[in-house]
Amino acid sequence: MTPRNADLIKQIHDWISLHRDEGIAFLQELVRIPSIQGNETEVQLLVADKLRSLALDVDMWEPDGEMLVTHPYFCSPRNRFTGSPNVVGFLKGSGGGRSIILNGHIDVVPEGNREMWGDDPYSGHVVDGKLYGRGATDMKGGNVSLLLALEAIQRLGLKLKGDVIFESVIEEESGGAGTLAAIVKGYRADAALIPEPTNMRIFPKQQGSMWFRIEVKGRSAHGGTRYEGVSAIEKSMTVIQHIRELEELRNARVTDPLYANNPIPIPINIGVIQGGNWPSSVADTVNLEGRMGVAPEEKLEEAKAEMSRWMAGLRDKDPWFEAHPPGVTWFGAQWVPGCVDPEHALMQVLIQQYREVKQVEPVIEASPWGTDGGLLTVVGETPCIIFGPGITGVAHYPNEHIEIERVFEVAEIITLTVIHWCELDETEA
Amino acid sequence: MTPRNADLIKQIHDWISLHRDEGIAFLQELVRIPSIQGNETEVQLLVADKLRSLALDVDMWEPDGEMLVTHPYFCSPRNRFTGSPNVVGFLKGSGGGRSIILNGHIDVVPEGNREMWGDDPYSGHVVDGKLYGRGATDMKGGNVSLLLALEAIQRLGLKLKGDVIFESVIEEESGGAGTLAAIVKGYRADAALIPEPTNMRIFPKQQGSMWFRIEVKGRSAHGGTRYEGVSAIEKSMTVIQHIRELEELRNARVTDPLYANNPIPIPINIGVIQGGNWPSSVADTVNLEGRMGVAPEEKLEEAKAEMSRWMAGLRDKDPWFEAHPPGVTWFGAQWVPGCVDPEHALMQVLIQQYREVKQVEPVIEASPWGTDGGLLTVVGETPCIIFGPGITGVAHYPNEHIEIERVFEVAEIITLTVIHWCELDETEA
Repeated sequence: MTPRNADLIKQIHDWISLHRDEGIAFLQELVRIPSIQGNETEVQLLVADKLRSLALDVDMWEPDGEMLVTHPYFCSPRNRFTGSPNVVGFLKGSGGGRSIILNGHIDVVPEGNREMWGDDPYSGHVVDGKLYGRGATDMKGGNVSLLLALEAIQRLGLKLKGDVIFESVIEEESGGAGTLAAIVKGYRADAALIPEPTNMRIFPKQQGSMWFRIEVKGRSAHGGTRYEGVSAIEKSMTVIQHIRELEELRNARVTDPLYANNPIPIPINIGVIQGGNWPSSVADTVNLEGRMGVAPEEKLEEAKAEMSRWMAGLRDKDPWFEAHPPGVTWFGAQWVPGCVDPEHALMQVLIQQYREVKQVEPVIEASPWGTDGGLLTVVGETPCIIFGPGITGVAHYPNEHIEIERVFEVAEIITLTVIHWCELDETEA
Repeated sequence: MTPRNADLIKQIHDWISLHRDEGIAFLQELVRIPSIQGNETEVQLLVADKLRSLALDVDMWEPDGEMLVTHPYFCSPRNRFTGSPNVVGFLKGSGGGRSIILNGHIDVVPEGNREMWGDDPYSGHVVDGKLYGRGATDMKGGNVSLLLALEAIQRLGLKLKGDVIFESVIEEESGGAGTLAAIVKGYRADAALIPEPTNMRIFPKQQGSMWFRIEVKGRSAHGGTRYEGVSAIEKSMTVIQHIRELEELRNARVTDPLYANNPIPIPINIGVIQGGNWPSSVADTVNLEGRMGVAPEEKLEEAKAEMSRWMAGLRDKDPWFEAHPPGVTWFGAQWVPGCVDPEHALMQVLIQQYREVKQVEPVIEASPWGTDGGLLTVVGETPCIIFGPGITGVAHYPNEHIEIERVFEVAEIITLTVIHWCELDETEA
C-alpha cells in the first residue's frame, strides 16, 4: 500500500510532534558539550551512538593531517586532528534512487567573553520556545533536524532507493578540513544539503571568502617633527579607501537576482587595523586584516588576482606606493564559494516540500557567507544547497539561541525532501 | 689683574683642548652605564663624584613620589623613585651676581631592538670623530659640556659672583619628575640652560606636548553582512581627518618667526592605531593614541579644552558621532611648553659667546619638542633656554651618536656664558 503524499506528510508530522521532547533533550545534550576546535570527541561519540541506534553504518575517524595538508583546498590553522574525529552514518538504499549527503558541522566557535552572556554559554536552557547556548543555531539545531529526519524515516519503516550519507564534521569554522577529509575519503552523492542557520531561507548559491593581510609602510620620525616622517596610518587610509572602491567595482558586476535584497553581495571587510607603537612617533607600519567575499560563480584564485592587480593601482593615487607597495598575503581561513543552478532537481524537491509543510513560498537567496557547501559542490562534485532552522544574526554572538519550532519544521521538510529525492522503495509495502 | 675677554676665550679654549681625552673618556663612562628609567644610581654616583672632585657641594636624593604625585605638574608612569636619585652640585658665588641653573637629564630611553644597532648600544666607541651609544646625543654629551665648563672654571681658578646650580636629573624622558623634584626642593635661579640635542641651535621657546587616547566606537557584525554593522575603522578615518583639520587650524595661528622654518610648528601626531579583533567581523572599537603639540605661549589646559571642543564638532560631519562621541583621555607623558623672550639677557650673553667661539651667527628657533625647560620656566620661575651639542635626528634611534667636536665647542660657549652671566669676581685677582 502506497501512502499518498498527504498521508506521508501527516505521518511524518505526527511522528516528529510525538518526539519533540526527545529532540529537545538531544539538542540540549549536544549544546552542553563545548565542542570547540580540538574538543570534538565527546560530542561525536554521542552522535555516533545516535546513528548506530538508528541502524546506520558508522564511520568515525580522525582526519590524517599529514595527507590533507597536501590538498590544494586544505585550509586549517592545524595539521593534526587528534581529538577531532569526523563521524559519517551511512544508510544504504535498495538501489535505483538518487543519493544525498546531509552534512552538518559539529564544531562551534568559542563562547568569547562570558560576561556578555545572560546565562552559562553552554546551558542548553529553554526559555520562551528558544534553546540557548553556543552552537544552538550554528549549527547543532540544524544537525538535530537532520537526525530527526533520519529517525523518522527509520522508525516509520520507510525504505529508500537512494543512499543517505549523514556527515557530522569538524572544522567548518576554520576552513572546512572536516568536510574535505570526508570528500577525500570518497563520500560523494548526487546532491547535498547543509542546514546552516539561514533563517529558513534556501541558498542555492553561496559566497566564498578569504582572509587577507596588508602591510602598509611609512617612515618613522618623532611626532614633534612628524613632517620628517611618513605616517603609515595616513597611508592606510588611502589603502582602505582604495579597497572600498574595489568592493564597489566588484559588487557592481553582481546582477544575480538572488542577491537583489543584499546591499553589498560580496563585501570586502577590513576587520582589524594595527599600527605604530608610540604616541609620539610617526607610525612606520600598519597591518590591516580583512575578509574578501568571493562570488558564487568566481574562483578563489581569480579574486586573489583581481585584488593584486587593484593594489598595484595604488601607485597612481600616491607615488609613495610606487616605492612602498603594500604587500597582500592570504592567511587563515578560506571558504570556497558554491553555486547550484536554482532550477536543480534538489531545489525543486526542497521548494515543493517547503510549500507543503509551511504553506508559504520559501525565500530563495544567495548566502552572504561561505559554508562547507562550496567544498562539497566544487571539490566533492556534489551540488549542495544550504537551508536550515538557525537564526543567522545570532551565530557567533553571545546569547546564541534557536527557535525550537524551526528545528521541527526543518526536520519535517528535510524528511520529505530526502524521501522524494531518494525515492521510496515500495516493493515491501 | 683682569683678563680681557679675548684672553679669557683663549685660556678656556686651551684648557678644554688640553683635556679633550679626559672629556671623551668621561662621556664614554657615562654612556656605558645604561641609565634607563629605574637604573640611574650607578651613573649618578659617578656624576656626584665628579662634582665633589670639582669642590661643589653635592645634594643627592631619591625624589619623594608620594609627595610629588600631589603636584599639579607631576607626570610619570611611576610614583616610587627608589634607585633613581637626582644629583645637584652647588657652586656658591661670592655674591652680587646672577645665578644660573645648568640642567641635564641622565635618564636615557631604552635601546630598542638591538639588531638595529651596528654595535653594542652602550659601546661608547669613537669612530671618525663620533661617539656612539644610547644617550650620547640625548643627552650625556650635553651633560659633559656642562661638566667641562664647571671644571674649566674651577681649574682655572675663576671666581664667580653668582651661584651655579648643576642638576643631573632623572625622568625627563617620562615627563620631568626629576626636574620637578628639584624645583619643589627649592632649586631656582635667575635663568637656566639645558644642553638638549639642538644641533647647536638656540631655542628660547619650546613646544610642549601631551599624549591622548581616543576611543572610536562602531557596531560589530559579520563581515559577510558588513552593511549590518558600523565599522569603527571607517569612523576612525573621519576622526583622523577631523584632527588633521584641527592641526591646520592651530598651526595657522602660529606666526612666530622662530617657527618660520618649521612646516608644522605644533603638530598633532596620531602614532598608534588599534582596532577590531577578527578579519571577518566589523570592528566595533578603534583606539587611537597620539601626541598633541602645545605652543610655547599656550597652557596645557587651553590645548586640552580646544581638543574637546573640536571633537564635539564631529557630530556635524557624521550623525553617528552624536550618539557615539569618541572619548578623549589624556594619559602618559606630558611636557610643559616654555617661552623665554628672545631678547632676554641670557639670550644676549649666549648669542654673543656663540659668535665669539664659532665666528658665525647662531640659528635661533623654537623647538619642535618639549624638555624640562618648560617646567623650569613655568613652575620653577627660572627662564630656561635650550642649546646643546647633540644631533636632534639621532635621538631615540639606533646608532645614536654625537660629534665630539660639538661637545667641546658647546663647553667653551657655556663656560663663557656662565662667566658673563654670573660675573667674574675679580677682587681676589
